[in-house]
Amino acid sequence: MTAVMGEGVLSPGAPVVGADDLGLTRGDGCFDATRVHTHDDGVSDVDNLEAHLARLNRSIVGLGAQPDDLDAWHELVDEAVASWASPGEATLKIMWTRGLESVSSDPVRMLTITPMTEVALAQRHGIKVTTLTRGMPSDAFADAPWLLGGVKSLSYAVNKAALREAKARGVDDVLFTSTDGYCLEGPTSALLVLRDGVLYTTPRGATGVLDSITADIIFDRARNNGWQCEDKLMTPKWVSKADSAWLVSSVRGAAPILELDGKQLGLVNQVHKKIVRWAGF
Amino acid sequence: MTAVMGEGVLSPGAPVVGADDLGLTRGDGCFDATRVHTHDDGVSDVDNLEAHLARLNRSIVGLGAQPDDLDAWHELVDEAVASWASPGEATLKIMWTRGLESVSSDPVRMLTITPMTEVALAQRHGIKVTTLTRGMPSDAFADAPWLLGGVKSLSYAVNKAALREAKARGVDDVLFTSTDGYCLEGPTSALLVLRDGVLYTTPRGATGVLDSITADIIFDRARNNGWQCEDKLMTPKWVSKADSAWLVSSVRGAAPILELDGKQLGLVNQVHKKIVRWAGF
Repeated sequence: MTAVMGEGVLSPGAPVVGADDLGLTRGDGCFDATRVHTHDDGVSDVDNLEAHLARLNRSIVGLGAQPDDLDAWHELVDEAVASWASPGEATLKIMWTRGLESVSSDPVRMLTITPMTEVALAQRHGIKVTTLTRGMPSDAFADAPWLLGGVKSLSYAVNKAALREAKARGVDDVLFTSTDGYCLEGPTSALLVLRDGVLYTTPRGATGVLDSITADIIFDRARNNGWQCEDKLMTPKWVSKADSAWLVSSVRGAAPILELDGKQLGLVNQVHKKIVRWAGF
Repeated sequence: MTAVMGEGVLSPGAPVVGADDLGLTRGDGCFDATRVHTHDDGVSDVDNLEAHLARLNRSIVGLGAQPDDLDAWHELVDEAVASWASPGEATLKIMWTRGLESVSSDPVRMLTITPMTEVALAQRHGIKVTTLTRGMPSDAFADAPWLLGGVKSLSYAVNKAALREAKARGVDDVLFTSTDGYCLEGPTSALLVLRDGVLYTTPRGATGVLDSITADIIFDRARNNGWQCEDKLMTPKWVSKADSAWLVSSVRGAAPILELDGKQLGLVNQVHKKIVRWAGF
């Protein structure tokens, strides 16, 4: 399903942006994504919509534009979700483009809802992961806002190319590393590590890593349950000695890393169940 | 003007891609651009079309897809250019996207022709340039094809953000630098430097720098005229002591750098005239 702000719900596959739209020609825009859970009676829940809209606005501001009116976004999401009645899980993607390149225009705001893929469902049980360099040191984004650290931009060609490389290597996903040897994040996920009873994730800011809503929620709920949670620059070797590790994201949830660069990782089942529940799955 | 392969010339501003097209949702596609020069009788020349189509195909292959049938591209360009009759200069942009994300589909191939901007025309007389870090060392792209070095992808959000930063600093353009201190390229241009009678540009390959068709043409013609031309990793300090320097591209041509990070650069007028002519302007 597609819906465009100012136009409402469109027929599936309807063309929505011109060949001169900056979102298309330059990847000059941003997006966010979360899960829609539709019950058998056709009523849907949208996971953490407020947090995803807030992050979309942080991305828009990171792109040098004025933040959006979130009420209008709520209306568009409500309208689209009300028309979506397929029971089960789906992905809601909200997108913002800067508008046309050759003539002055307003941003284009749109969304899609698509059924959850079988691949995503299967990967919740475990993934094999390869590290791949992101080509940047772990402090590359300090004092360089034009590098768009933390912005969930439409310019994800490298992320997609990395996932193709993973597939070519016979694994499911990627953990990007910095040129100075630290783990960053996945192409569409954050790293979560359990070691000696402490939960760790990658620091944000200078690393350019996206602020993961799923990691934040897990940390919040873990801390409320008395767990120690920390940001830490971790090497792949350090992660490979962890008790468990996950790539976490809003749509796939917490996918346990069963193998990292060909080395098997453990999974503490009791903690995994907690993590999945804290993530809202 | 917009034209889409399989559909031909469309009305201006017609929507062409769906909200689920990977070129839009992920910047997962590539483009190329060149100049169209339309004479008073309405007949148009397209600069170096063969070289630009060949580079588009190298970008497509760099994105892990099969190269395109260039005859079909020639037909589409011919049809579009035949319908374009505004005398003067214009930009032809050809674009390829991987197609839809949620269902299997063919790539989408399209083009636009838009009148040359006043800004581009004015910048041919000289530009002020700021260096900005690209956040990557000068060998980041060696053995890391997923970083898409040399691919003119649709994921140009950082390039656009860098140009906004330049504008905020009161200058016209950007020269990206590596974290180890070398000049790379502009967001949509290559670096050309004249020092002690020798012409220099940035090496490609491990730097990730795009193979500039304009720099290639200038080097070819300069060598035919007995000039020495070399690839060289140059620091901004070294460039600031050059006799002249340019940012060269297919649409704007050879724009002389009159100021780099606030320091004035010289311009050897006799050589500038040659460079402009060799570039085909």
